[in-house]
Amino acid sequence: MYFDSHLHSEGLGISELKTLAENRIKEVCSLAFFPVKPKYPQTMVDVFRKLTEFEPIRCEAAGIKMYPAVGIHPRCIPPNYEFVLKYLEEGEWVAFGEIGLELVTDEEIEVLKSQLELAKKLDVPCIIHTPRGEKVKATRKTIEILNSLDFPPQLAVIDHVNFETIDMVLETEYWIGLTIQPGKLSPDDAARIVAEYGSERFMLNSDAGYRDVEIATVAAAAEKIAENVGKDEAERVARKNARKFLRL
Amino acid sequence: MYFDSHLHSEGLGISELKTLAENRIKEVCSLAFFPVKPKYPQTMVDVFRKLTEFEPIRCEAAGIKMYPAVGIHPRCIPPNYEFVLKYLEEGEWVAFGEIGLELVTDEEIEVLKSQLELAKKLDVPCIIHTPRGEKVKATRKTIEILNSLDFPPQLAVIDHVNFETIDMVLETEYWIGLTIQPGKLSPDDAARIVAEYGSERFMLNSDAGYRDVEIATVAAAAEKIAENVGKDEAERVARKNARKFLRL
Repeated sequence: MYFDSHLHSEGLGISELKTLAENRIKEVCSLAFFPVKPKYPQTMVDVFRKLTEFEPIRCEAAGIKMYPAVGIHPRCIPPNYEFVLKYLEEGEWVAFGEIGLELVTDEEIEVLKSQLELAKKLDVPCIIHTPRGEKVKATRKTIEILNSLDFPPQLAVIDHVNFETIDMVLETEYWIGLTIQPGKLSPDDAARIVAEYGSERFMLNSDAGYRDVEIATVAAAAEKIAENVGKDEAERVARKNARKFLRL
Repeated sequence: MYFDSHLHSEGLGISELKTLAENRIKEVCSLAFFPVKPKYPQTMVDVFRKLTEFEPIRCEAAGIKMYPAVGIHPRCIPPNYEFVLKYLEEGEWVAFGEIGLELVTDEEIEVLKSQLELAKKLDVPCIIHTPRGEKVKATRKTIEILNSLDFPPQLAVIDHVNFETIDMVLETEYWIGLTIQPGKLSPDDAARIVAEYGSERFMLNSDAGYRDVEIATVAAAAEKIAENVGKDEAERVARKNARKFLRL
């Protein structure tokens, strides 16, 4: 059985969720995201309610255990986002995500910092996005922010790490997310990385959502890793590490 | 080419949208719905923004021209819904939907009436849901409300009509929506109805969304109608009537 540690179930149809289950991806972490910049902070609260109340039931109907992560993605920061932070502060959560930096603006930095401070206080694991563009700059800034907050390493995964940023992240103690998706990493890339750096720090995900056709990529990468590196390593990066990170 | 006059593209993944297009369903009307009861009216405004700004682009990427319909579904009436009505009053819309009655409560009646009054004033076509339970009662009440408002017949489709309610709706002058979906009508049912009552008043839809596996049902029904009744009739109920109703 596999665990997809980062996808957006809200962008997937029921037949696609079933495809995940048929490919032995039986557990997923589904991350909050709203595909337009909200005009109102209230919207994010209802988006989190949909993700935590409705989506797990829909995923279960497809044969998947879904763990929701809530948070403000840098591409959908609403005005008066403090309203959202207050809601986050009052709840109990599996994880915060998707949070992080996109264009590395002052506002994004402020919102990321606030959420990390809250996560540290509440002891909540954080799934931290790094963007396609500005990847090196955003990753460097993210690490700088985490370090400045003395953020507990076991509570952060830096996600969508690629060959440009892997050395920088390996120098830290944070978890590393490998996204298997056309345009990001291939199953072969993942196998190469695990062969070279071991399986202790990595977790695989698809980032599948609103526009992705290839969704069962964690299974494909896990098989490649089992074949080229070893079964234990595959099990670790395709399931065990995610469960450990999320304290399941 | 076919037109699905009522579905929820937000609940469909990109591969499912492509399946629609591959089945020659090249135009759809995607109706507003939020799968939990919103805590805030602001949420519905952002939900409409997602549906009108983001979803048409996603559908286009799958080869589908999507026309969004906005409105308050009876299962997701927020507190202070007047806030939503005010937003609806200030915009320009293809259609209002999904609106209607579910449990036929006073609040639902009030919200439906307000939206119909607005639609009449702004000259906007309305797609009106009838529920699974309380179908006869809700349909009768809906017709009573439409009549009491002297609602223009060409601006209303009463949807999810079945063998229990068809006679009642045929006595009016409103359009009639036939939903082809397991548990609702089958392609054979649709062919039987069109054979008996003609093709002038009907439009086909799938109501496909968050949990439906069968999504290209309009194509299946259209083929059955073409075979059993006639090609012109099929073209009318599977495309032309929807385009006429929506003034495209």
